[in-house]
Amino acid sequence: MKPLAYPAPIHELVAQLKRMPGVGPRSAERIALWMLTARNAQPGDIADTIRTVTERVKPCVQCGFFTDSELCEICADETRGHSTLCVVEQPTDIILLERTGALRGRYHALGGRISPLNHVGPENLRIGGLIERVRTQQPAEVILALGADVEGEATSLYIADLLKASPVTVTRIAQGLPAGTSVESADEVTLSRALKGRFKLEA
Amino acid sequence: MKPLAYPAPIHELVAQLKRMPGVGPRSAERIALWMLTARNAQPGDIADTIRTVTERVKPCVQCGFFTDSELCEICADETRGHSTLCVVEQPTDIILLERTGALRGRYHALGGRISPLNHVGPENLRIGGLIERVRTQQPAEVILALGADVEGEATSLYIADLLKASPVTVTRIAQGLPAGTSVESADEVTLSRALKGRFKLEA
Repeated sequence: MKPLAYPAPIHELVAQLKRMPGVGPRSAERIALWMLTARNAQPGDIADTIRTVTERVKPCVQCGFFTDSELCEICADETRGHSTLCVVEQPTDIILLERTGALRGRYHALGGRISPLNHVGPENLRIGGLIERVRTQQPAEVILALGADVEGEATSLYIADLLKASPVTVTRIAQGLPAGTSVESADEVTLSRALKGRFKLEA
Repeated sequence: MKPLAYPAPIHELVAQLKRMPGVGPRSAERIALWMLTARNAQPGDIADTIRTVTERVKPCVQCGFFTDSELCEICADETRGHSTLCVVEQPTDIILLERTGALRGRYHALGGRISPLNHVGPENLRIGGLIERVRTQQPAEVILALGADVEGEATSLYIADLLKASPVTVTRIAQGLPAGTSVESADEVTLSRALKGRFKLEA
């Protein structure tokens, strides 16, 4: 028996929707069929919004965060001081750090990390702009908030090396046990880093 | 502290993506940020495909299934007989029934079921077309494959009543225990319907 096939355009729609992160074949089919049976303008509105937003939103010329004008909201905010400059890999990391409420400084998104295996060298990242910002804005501290993996380490060391002639203090975010976990559940590397990063308790 | 806000267009994109079924606030944000950081044409392609497909794919003029021409693949298929006509609520139900491989007939999607609470009356459904098909195509059997709820029942009875003057045999899909479940796990209504629908085992 010849199995029933969707018309080709529906296949194409499912294939396109499957490219979105977290959307598997079943959800893609569900969304596609919803789009085809929706008796309103919603699917068209979604398409238009994807088009406009991806065209209008660009990286901030200074820090790489999302913006629809020249400078992003953070860079344009005069009430934030320039004493702390926090370096992250992706612009999305800025959102996560801001949500902690632990920091009220400025940010610099590199756009990735040095990764020879993926052909990403320092020249592919926003590192020149970072050095220039440190020179002109003269922050007291540069916090390297990069991933706790080999490439995050390498990128941190590379930047620290570039900044060693500058008077700025370069720090790296801590590595250790994630909140709410037991020593038992930590792997060896995490545990040894947590030990190395131990700090004195104030009595 | 004033919390960091995404630029307004990103909020709009997240809001639009959240309208898709199965996509919650977190997935919508994840998809939106992926669209903004993707360095290729994929998000634009997705938008274009949504636009084209929702514009090109229409209900089959005869049965209501999806098609990008006049008649759908099933209605245009001359190798299928006209002896069985299976009535479903939604065109998507046709896919599910076809996948069972239990049937090789033709279908008729009503586009919903009679639901006074939702202001859906017989005149809002593809019921006139169904009666006309039965008259002209003269199937031997009309299978009502509608939901096992009050509205599915009411719609089934309504159609059966309209067809009672016609020589066609009208059947309804069975209600009973779902495959792989125990009697213990069935609710009272399901169990009483399963009892009522009991059938003789061939020795």
